[in-house]
Amino acid sequence: MQLNKQHNIKLAKDLSLRKRAETFIPGGMWGHMSVKKLPHGYPQFFSKAKDARIWDLDGNCYIDFMCGYGPNLLGYSNAEVDHAVNEQRKKIDLGNGPSALVVDLAEKIITIVDSADWALFAKNGTDATTTCLTISRAATGKKKILVARGSYHGSAPWCTPVATGVVEEDTSNLIFFEYNDNASLEAAVQDADSDLAGIILTAFRHDVRRDQDLPKKAFLKKAREICDKKNAVLILDDVRAGFRLNKSGSWFDFGVKPDLTAFSKAIGNGYPLSAVVGVDKLRQAASEIYVTGSFWCNATSMAASLKTLSIIEEIDVVGHISFLGNKLRAGIDQIANNLGVGISQSGPPQMPLILFKDDKDFSRGKKFVQYLLGRGIYFHPWHNMFLSLAHTAKDVDITLDAVEFAMKKISLEIK
Amino acid sequence: MQLNKQHNIKLAKDLSLRKRAETFIPGGMWGHMSVKKLPHGYPQFFSKAKDARIWDLDGNCYIDFMCGYGPNLLGYSNAEVDHAVNEQRKKIDLGNGPSALVVDLAEKIITIVDSADWALFAKNGTDATTTCLTISRAATGKKKILVARGSYHGSAPWCTPVATGVVEEDTSNLIFFEYNDNASLEAAVQDADSDLAGIILTAFRHDVRRDQDLPKKAFLKKAREICDKKNAVLILDDVRAGFRLNKSGSWFDFGVKPDLTAFSKAIGNGYPLSAVVGVDKLRQAASEIYVTGSFWCNATSMAASLKTLSIIEEIDVVGHISFLGNKLRAGIDQIANNLGVGISQSGPPQMPLILFKDDKDFSRGKKFVQYLLGRGIYFHPWHNMFLSLAHTAKDVDITLDAVEFAMKKISLEIK
Repeated sequence: MQLNKQHNIKLAKDLSLRKRAETFIPGGMWGHMSVKKLPHGYPQFFSKAKDARIWDLDGNCYIDFMCGYGPNLLGYSNAEVDHAVNEQRKKIDLGNGPSALVVDLAEKIITIVDSADWALFAKNGTDATTTCLTISRAATGKKKILVARGSYHGSAPWCTPVATGVVEEDTSNLIFFEYNDNASLEAAVQDADSDLAGIILTAFRHDVRRDQDLPKKAFLKKAREICDKKNAVLILDDVRAGFRLNKSGSWFDFGVKPDLTAFSKAIGNGYPLSAVVGVDKLRQAASEIYVTGSFWCNATSMAASLKTLSIIEEIDVVGHISFLGNKLRAGIDQIANNLGVGISQSGPPQMPLILFKDDKDFSRGKKFVQYLLGRGIYFHPWHNMFLSLAHTAKDVDITLDAVEFAMKKISLEIK
Repeated sequence: MQLNKQHNIKLAKDLSLRKRAETFIPGGMWGHMSVKKLPHGYPQFFSKAKDARIWDLDGNCYIDFMCGYGPNLLGYSNAEVDHAVNEQRKKIDLGNGPSALVVDLAEKIITIVDSADWALFAKNGTDATTTCLTISRAATGKKKILVARGSYHGSAPWCTPVATGVVEEDTSNLIFFEYNDNASLEAAVQDADSDLAGIILTAFRHDVRRDQDLPKKAFLKKAREICDKKNAVLILDDVRAGFRLNKSGSWFDFGVKPDLTAFSKAIGNGYPLSAVVGVDKLRQAASEIYVTGSFWCNATSMAASLKTLSIIEEIDVVGHISFLGNKLRAGIDQIANNLGVGISQSGPPQMPLILFKDDKDFSRGKKFVQYLLGRGIYFHPWHNMFLSLAHTAKDVDITLDAVEFAMKKISLEIK
């Protein structure tokens, strides 16, 4: 498991396949996994993943800090999760109805997550957030949903960050406000007038290309208070952060209870699944809407999720990734300080984001991650990263060595 | 593999789990897999599936004619598909980008499907149909989509058949017409005026609770002509029928080429995947929209699909299921004729639908399927059914024996 030590990593096979991909796939690749907007040096394709390591087509190995953009919570190819999947697959994956696991899984997630009296399951995070809007409108008979400007809630027409192909009516019942800004939220509530169905909020402000912000307690309390007063639904979009901040739900430590919570990503350690959990007063509405999908009841994904949730009940995953995240953050801060390089590290340490000061075009950030790729470290220049249970203190030490190398280069270039 | 021979099948474990499910899942179960609207006797949960057989929690075994509502094309737990998945999983399932299989799979589906110059992949059928709308709007700069009344295109707010929680704006850019009715289609085109972005059509009319209709060639040609004339996009929603009518796309035999085609269900023989394929003129628009999902690049689903598509290239799956579908249909017709029971069998034989004459409340249809369940045959009273490569002529013979038993009972009750 030799990490790549060369600065200019070889991506010959990757580049060749990218060329072939241009013929068969529009633009060569779609969605968040396209590397087109990332600086040169990122592989587009991967050939292997195990624990906290990932390999590209050319055999370069990286300590990975993206975790598949979140799903990898326990380590890639976690043996216990894969075993649970294999055992289930010997029986049934997809039938004309779910396996018994759907009930076990619903019970399990309700047991672990605070503010959850019932659960239903889907495939995409977008399925879960969209379903939260539908339940809110069904329950309240109202239309308007308040959304924080710049927050990512999925890629359906109502929430995709790129407006191409989206029509006005897809977003005409959304009212935007600034995350963590009570006055802005209250102005949006005024705009909604008597038609406020709900407020949807990510666990914390994890928009790309800017510092992350944990939610202010007073802001969450205000959102809760408004929903109580206006008979509206408070929705926690925990798709990205779920099970990394607190296994009981990301707002547990803030003492604010959402009415609905959307989970996905880490819920099955990479096996495709999402969930909506909610409080009792929304049970009736949730039973009256119609949402479904051909694969929403794949029993293998439910087996994966049951095992994943069992592991996070037994092992303090949040503690582990917080510890390593803090170690990484402290180390990077010290390196940057010593070298006089201005950086900003923000958000929860287990979901790190490192931005450079005075770097509006991300030119420093891009060089930084390129140096790191050359040393076998996979960072992202403007999207929050993720830690997993499979990352070790030694991984962080190796990473800090590479960070020191990269920061020195950056510091010389600044001067 | 003893089929259940008792009329009153025992569902004690199933009923007990359903009671438990009521506590944890709104209404006990959501979506198309809920048996709440089906007559008494259907198990809600399944414990095992292999080839064309499915087992409920109480150990009752059924010859299954629903195929998981479509995904099971080659037989449940097909050994070759599962092997391909296992081999892929040893390498990588989900990473920070796709595996090389995404390119192989795009090339493969373009090779097999007519009217496909490029492909992209998603998870749900709904992802694929919704993406087709987005691409159509991006390409044309227009808004209106023509949709056949009663057609099922998924469960996002714009297409879900239950309006609860759906707001007016979700459907305000749709214009409805009658499937197979040229005058109705042309009236809808008039309504769209200069704002026609596209026409979406299922492969054939497979709406629930009514006879199925294959598309009239003149109707498809009219839709094609309108789209050509109006610079609009002709969308084939082949999610339900794809790879069962013709491996090259369900309209191949009609000589009408869609601009976009949505696939899902059978594409990976049960592993979660969907696809949008399109013609060159829409490649640019497809590269400019933003659609994505955390699990859209699971390499195991792509391995499953590659193997599934390879098998349908080598084996005449459509021929096999058509042959058995015709055998089943002819046998049922003969039984009904002999007994003087009025029935209607409609649509392609490999996707059978059997309705009773003068049965508006489906009371005969319900009794019929209940008698069949008691004999170990899983039919549906009002949704089209599905055949798979794993069904055998002997399965059909066993089924016809049970149909004769059930029809006799029905005929006595009619008299």
